[in-house]
Amino acid sequence: MEHNLKSATSSEEGEGQPIRCKAAVARKPGEPLVIEEIIVAPPMPHEVRIRILCTSLCHSDFTFWKMQESPGIFPRILGHEAAGVVESVGKDVTEVIEGDVVIPIFLPDCGECVDCKSTKSNRCTNFPFKVSPWMPRHGSTRFTDLNGDIIYHFMFVSSFSEYTVVDIANVTKIDPQISPDRACLLSCGVSTGVGAAWRTAGVEPGSTVAIFGLGSVGLAVAEGARFCGATRIIGVDVMPEKFEIGKKFGLTDFVHAGESGNKPVSQVIIEMTDGGADYCFECVGMTSLVHEAYASCRKGWGKTVVLGVDKPGARLSFSSSEVLHDGKSLMGSLYGGLKPKSHIPILLKHYMDKELQLDEFVTHEVEFKDINRAFDLLSKGQCLRCVIWMEK
Amino acid sequence: MEHNLKSATSSEEGEGQPIRCKAAVARKPGEPLVIEEIIVAPPMPHEVRIRILCTSLCHSDFTFWKMQESPGIFPRILGHEAAGVVESVGKDVTEVIEGDVVIPIFLPDCGECVDCKSTKSNRCTNFPFKVSPWMPRHGSTRFTDLNGDIIYHFMFVSSFSEYTVVDIANVTKIDPQISPDRACLLSCGVSTGVGAAWRTAGVEPGSTVAIFGLGSVGLAVAEGARFCGATRIIGVDVMPEKFEIGKKFGLTDFVHAGESGNKPVSQVIIEMTDGGADYCFECVGMTSLVHEAYASCRKGWGKTVVLGVDKPGARLSFSSSEVLHDGKSLMGSLYGGLKPKSHIPILLKHYMDKELQLDEFVTHEVEFKDINRAFDLLSKGQCLRCVIWMEK
Repeated sequence: MEHNLKSATSSEEGEGQPIRCKAAVARKPGEPLVIEEIIVAPPMPHEVRIRILCTSLCHSDFTFWKMQESPGIFPRILGHEAAGVVESVGKDVTEVIEGDVVIPIFLPDCGECVDCKSTKSNRCTNFPFKVSPWMPRHGSTRFTDLNGDIIYHFMFVSSFSEYTVVDIANVTKIDPQISPDRACLLSCGVSTGVGAAWRTAGVEPGSTVAIFGLGSVGLAVAEGARFCGATRIIGVDVMPEKFEIGKKFGLTDFVHAGESGNKPVSQVIIEMTDGGADYCFECVGMTSLVHEAYASCRKGWGKTVVLGVDKPGARLSFSSSEVLHDGKSLMGSLYGGLKPKSHIPILLKHYMDKELQLDEFVTHEVEFKDINRAFDLLSKGQCLRCVIWMEK
Repeated sequence: MEHNLKSATSSEEGEGQPIRCKAAVARKPGEPLVIEEIIVAPPMPHEVRIRILCTSLCHSDFTFWKMQESPGIFPRILGHEAAGVVESVGKDVTEVIEGDVVIPIFLPDCGECVDCKSTKSNRCTNFPFKVSPWMPRHGSTRFTDLNGDIIYHFMFVSSFSEYTVVDIANVTKIDPQISPDRACLLSCGVSTGVGAAWRTAGVEPGSTVAIFGLGSVGLAVAEGARFCGATRIIGVDVMPEKFEIGKKFGLTDFVHAGESGNKPVSQVIIEMTDGGADYCFECVGMTSLVHEAYASCRKGWGKTVVLGVDKPGARLSFSSSEVLHDGKSLMGSLYGGLKPKSHIPILLKHYMDKELQLDEFVTHEVEFKDINRAFDLLSKGQCLRCVIWMEK
């Protein structure tokens, strides 16, 4: 693996100047991204301009690419899983310098608010996460097209561009020895799954886990559960071929949803586990599956963790007496409960020590000019993670 | 305080024989209990016959006393908070002997199933809790009236009788130095509240707690939170006079529900606490209050604990995206998450060491013949706990 760090600070535009570079711009909902030249403004105070080395496509990019109505907005630079090199830093940035290898992370970690200082929360109070078209601290955008019209940001990252500007709260410095095509996975999907098992649920050695939905996030939950020492990891999906893929990430059992006759999946899992799984994870974003996950949890101590993003307005409904009597708990997991700047370096260390597996998540690679191919692969369910290389 | 332990094994009926004694029988829904002579059968294997020293009235007794339809059933001997002395034991009982002071507890703790052996659960698998009219292990009842007609049990305890029969799974031996009128409180309500703070929520020193409903259970949550070191304990109730009572149990702030103008209680609490309480407890049994409690919890780590028993069929509804994004958790607490035989002796030790306060819960005392007076007091909201002495 070779990636060019040398040119990080050698761009002819130089520090403090706008950079003209290529970006893949989503101009209209659902239409192929357009590779075009754009202008990337220099970073404002507390911001960092990053030269992207590689980026990967996550399902949220896909969702917002197709979204016709607000919060869908166009033209926009999507992309929020990436690894890159700091090209220049704005005023008051002391945490990174030019040439540092970093990953941008959509979830801010300002390090100063009560949440960021707490070990219990990963929700920054100063810069609450939202799928905003603007920069988190100073507002406005750093992208314009060659006509001078603004292009919107996405999730504080916008990595489908050779250069992007990210707030320092959204930047985590990483060990430059780590391949960027592995590091970028921790920007979102894989971290969300691994973290949900490790941090949100606190899976213990010997425990039993059930995972609803075996996309990248669900498989990352399996990997996280395996990493935490779970001995039984049950995957639930409508596609039985997912079981073979899942075995690489520690899956021990499979329930073919929709193929258990009249028996609900929860009943199958309760019977398999003699009472229910210790931890259940919903990774699809369907109300009905959250209810099945909750029903699949063991009475007395079962935890249900919601990771899937449902339609706006969707509601979960539980029997009051079951909540009271069954001794189960319900919680959501945003970015796996991980605090970006504290936990990502730990996970990457585990990867380097071969305790955490990332390689198998990368099923495809394309060049930046072929970025629309990554969208095709994802829409057909043919990839886990497709890494897009800016130059190789 | 004087209570007669000597006569425990001296009844003329003797071990293995039926006992004729007085009981307060609920013959018809909502009508005064009838003090009458009944026959209490000897204990079957794994059962214990107990001479009740004193009993106290809990809201569940009241609810089932008025309940016209199933699971309301009559004639029945209500009562499930009590302290007593073992009069005789059935075959295979080795855990207690005649003369031991015990409290019966409605939640079984068989000590043998996976739940009872786990430190994480207090839901016995062998004998799941239910509001049953029968004995848990062998079924049937141990009570008959003088016509030979059966009288139903209540919550595996039925303490409104001079003698009762309880399964050994529902019996916790206690230090005989402890006043029975304090020990009996730990059979249900006070334990539920204290345990919800201590065990279910795991309240830490310095944390902020909000309690919805300041009946005995809510006040016991306050006492539990105080015991755990919470520094801010906010009570919410429609009756402002509850604040003065609550101060005895550590309450530091009060929100007068319904008197905050157009502002929901959750908004008031979020403003008071600069973001929400760390732990919220619903102690009334109203869906709308569970939702307010959940909304009052701090994003990032807030926990909402449901203790109140709502109407059958009541459902809780949450926005899927709030569950996912807000980092809060929801859980129920049955008997405060306490394992009867492990945790009750610990709490009683804390009482004896003056670290946990029980005395202030007892606001009234009556003789057994005046038991209906306790129902009057409870129905008018005039008591926290009214202790009913069998003989004094």
